[in-house]
Amino acid sequence: MKARVFVTLKPGVLDPQGEAVHHALGSLGFEGVGGVRQGKVIELDLSETDEATAKAQVEQMCEKLLANTVIENYAIELS
Amino acid sequence: MKARVFVTLKPGVLDPQGEAVHHALGSLGFEGVGGVRQGKVIELDLSETDEATAKAQVEQMCEKLLANTVIENYAIELS
Repeated sequence: MKARVFVTLKPGVLDPQGEAVHHALGSLGFEGVGGVRQGKVIELDLSETDEATAKAQVEQMCEKLLANTVIENYAIELS
Repeated sequence: MKARVFVTLKPGVLDPQGEAVHHALGSLGFEGVGGVRQGKVIELDLSETDEATAKAQVEQMCEKLLANTVIENYAIELS
């Protein structure tokens, strides 16, 4: 089973990477970009085949390692 | 219109960040993780409302700035 974890900064948390991308897009002549936020995506190959168990396991990974839950949100997608 | 761009390393390209996460998950006692790859997700707020135009614009952004197409793949999701 494959899992994708999306880790994004919470709204209101300053995102210098996103700001840099926003600025660079403007310099390159791209108009109409209102805001840019940058996050991480982590793809995991899991040997677990039960969806509920896999989801619980990945949630534990997010809480313990993958996301800093003080400033980041995470979302899990299984396939 | 909102766009999400997923930028991931092409298969075969060494991913030290993913390897570090894989190793750390093992140290934390998570079993059954076969492989880990880490990529970026970039969220853009676009003023463009036509889906086809927005997609073409974001593709240009990916080719010129957001992805290094020599070693990275990108995928675009509009909503």
